[in-house]
Amino acid sequence: MGLSRGVAVIGGGMTRFHHRFHQDKTSRELFVEAAAEAMDSVDNGITLDDVEALYVGNFSNDAFEKQAHTGALMADWLGLAPRAATRIEDACASSGVAVNVGVLAVASGAYDLVMVGGVEKMRTLSTDEVTDTLAMAADAYFEVGAGFTFPGLYAAIASAHFAKHGSSWEQLGAITIKNHHNGTLNPKAHYQAEIIDTAARLGERQGMIFEDEMEFLRSDINAVVAHPLRLFDCCPISDGASVVILASEKVAKRFTDTPVHIRGIGQASDTMALHDRSDITTLTATKLAAEQAYKMAGVGAPDIDVADVHDCFTIAEVLATEDLGFFAKGEGGKAAAEGWTALDGEKPINPDGGLKAKGHPVGATGVAMVYEMYKQLRGEAGERQVANAYLGLAQNVGASGATVSVQVFGR
Amino acid sequence: MGLSRGVAVIGGGMTRFHHRFHQDKTSRELFVEAAAEAMDSVDNGITLDDVEALYVGNFSNDAFEKQAHTGALMADWLGLAPRAATRIEDACASSGVAVNVGVLAVASGAYDLVMVGGVEKMRTLSTDEVTDTLAMAADAYFEVGAGFTFPGLYAAIASAHFAKHGSSWEQLGAITIKNHHNGTLNPKAHYQAEIIDTAARLGERQGMIFEDEMEFLRSDINAVVAHPLRLFDCCPISDGASVVILASEKVAKRFTDTPVHIRGIGQASDTMALHDRSDITTLTATKLAAEQAYKMAGVGAPDIDVADVHDCFTIAEVLATEDLGFFAKGEGGKAAAEGWTALDGEKPINPDGGLKAKGHPVGATGVAMVYEMYKQLRGEAGERQVANAYLGLAQNVGASGATVSVQVFGR
Repeated sequence: MGLSRGVAVIGGGMTRFHHRFHQDKTSRELFVEAAAEAMDSVDNGITLDDVEALYVGNFSNDAFEKQAHTGALMADWLGLAPRAATRIEDACASSGVAVNVGVLAVASGAYDLVMVGGVEKMRTLSTDEVTDTLAMAADAYFEVGAGFTFPGLYAAIASAHFAKHGSSWEQLGAITIKNHHNGTLNPKAHYQAEIIDTAARLGERQGMIFEDEMEFLRSDINAVVAHPLRLFDCCPISDGASVVILASEKVAKRFTDTPVHIRGIGQASDTMALHDRSDITTLTATKLAAEQAYKMAGVGAPDIDVADVHDCFTIAEVLATEDLGFFAKGEGGKAAAEGWTALDGEKPINPDGGLKAKGHPVGATGVAMVYEMYKQLRGEAGERQVANAYLGLAQNVGASGATVSVQVFGR
Repeated sequence: MGLSRGVAVIGGGMTRFHHRFHQDKTSRELFVEAAAEAMDSVDNGITLDDVEALYVGNFSNDAFEKQAHTGALMADWLGLAPRAATRIEDACASSGVAVNVGVLAVASGAYDLVMVGGVEKMRTLSTDEVTDTLAMAADAYFEVGAGFTFPGLYAAIASAHFAKHGSSWEQLGAITIKNHHNGTLNPKAHYQAEIIDTAARLGERQGMIFEDEMEFLRSDINAVVAHPLRLFDCCPISDGASVVILASEKVAKRFTDTPVHIRGIGQASDTMALHDRSDITTLTATKLAAEQAYKMAGVGAPDIDVADVHDCFTIAEVLATEDLGFFAKGEGGKAAAEGWTALDGEKPINPDGGLKAKGHPVGATGVAMVYEMYKQLRGEAGERQVANAYLGLAQNVGASGATVSVQVFGR
């Protein structure tokens, strides 16, 4: 897979991911907020007239707002009509895939400059209803019909990984602590508190004092959601939107001296149902999508300086860092526990707090990852800036891995 | 807009569009049925290994089957995994837009050969529920909240068109009669009976005898749905799937000596809400998408020999034939009444029966139009074959025109 011409990111914006701060906003309002920041971020200025098409990743506004046709809706509210507007839905990888679709649209020669965004307004529904809605991304007949929702599916993955590779729940705890720490450095994150501070706050309510984070994470306050996964192994339910602006390399030069180049993209699928796979401790689609992206970029896993990966559950970060080739299979949890994936580690993962602390408005997540890589590679990530970030990677997973998109970015 | 390389259609298939015949099938089964026919249709043979990516247009499996993530699901059931799979949702234009996305993906150089399909399994719900579900394609807050569903929106368009351009409900009746006649020649059509025969059958039940079709259409049996639109002005609710196979011009040569060339594509958006438009008797997005497609193809409206247009309601066919430039504004209804758009007319429209008689499983409609143009331009349309069909056009509309895709095809 090679592209007819190169594509670069020239701007990006996102709302804070949260629920309470967005209570009175609809998805269209969230999207406009993110798009406005993205437009403002373009170094040499840009107008809506420069934007030739819009691609919107959205999982299920249908269920959340009884509003489909999300592409045209966002174009309308942005004032982008009559430009072409397209909604992409690939479960939680909706906007990661939308980025790839946008890249191909520019590479095709049809457009020189496009906007790609993602949005999800989830907190119109209760936690139970959201869980049922998200379950539509699994196999409705053979998984959901048997009682599975996503915490259960990822719990099965975790149990299998523990059994087969000797990883442990304590290693997942290390990922929770790291990602919540990174969240404290990200003003757009849903959660911006260290786990130790959360432990003190929640402990006080129940008259409990915790020696350290792990004691808190082992306590009943961190309730079991689906064994072995507990509450703090799961990402929160957030509302939010994210937008990036892509241009052909040639056109990008008009808008900025420091574009972030899309060096490689990849996308793969897998069986919908977990029970159809020979090994549930690896996401084959991650491996294949990464292979495509690395090959197009002419780089390998060791070359990547910083990555955003899809940690909808802590175990998913373990699988991602292994399947992307950062660590050997079975070593992802250990690497996190040993600090390799910390902001100042050898391979910083999820410097923005990841889905775990930043939040996961599902349709917005893939583009928010690209936003983070754009910020990191331009050295604009503030307190969470990774030193010497030349090559970045984003990995966005749909459902339990039936869809995975990967992008490799370079300065 | 120009493409880096040309793209052609090398195969196509579709299920019959119907509800009763598909009662026991899920969307995945319908899709596999259409894909199998598309694969079998390729002249020199093809295997799944040749298919590099899948694009699926689907409006709201979410609502109809509580099943999202439709792209990966269809790839899984086809045995296409781990190939990249992407779902596109742009209301009733979902698979028309998916065709354009597939064309751009091939033109980009990323893939040489892709499958593009559409599917909708609607008859899991009652007519009332389907109407409410489809209304999610309109503006949920400002149109649906005010009581509008699509029959009402298109009724407003019809009333305005009658008032402004002097067109009449009798002209719409002529479209009903024509499209149902064409449906009798199409073994894949939902309805395969002449209106005069339907009049006899339904009249007999009520002890009524009708002199001609128009007397029947004017009778109470043809109940008013939303004035001035009556039951036979509305397309039925159908289940079905459709699939086409696209390849770069170079690769297409390996698979067939008679590919159908995609000469031009276009896509445009408009305001979601009808009340935000200065004139509701024209779909601006149709005009703009057609302009793009004509320009890329280097042809004009008079050059088109046959077209499939989006007649979700009879009035929509009037707007389409005017906005595509086939007839002057205000002359579309008259042209139909005078027989210009009949199979043997100067400008045959909807030779397959259109949405009106062929049926409208919404996500499957855009690709089914491409399937029809593929058949027509290869001279394989059987009894409904249009003579001397060299240039064809497909126009797929989302909602009340907030999304429109157009493709121009050539032998």
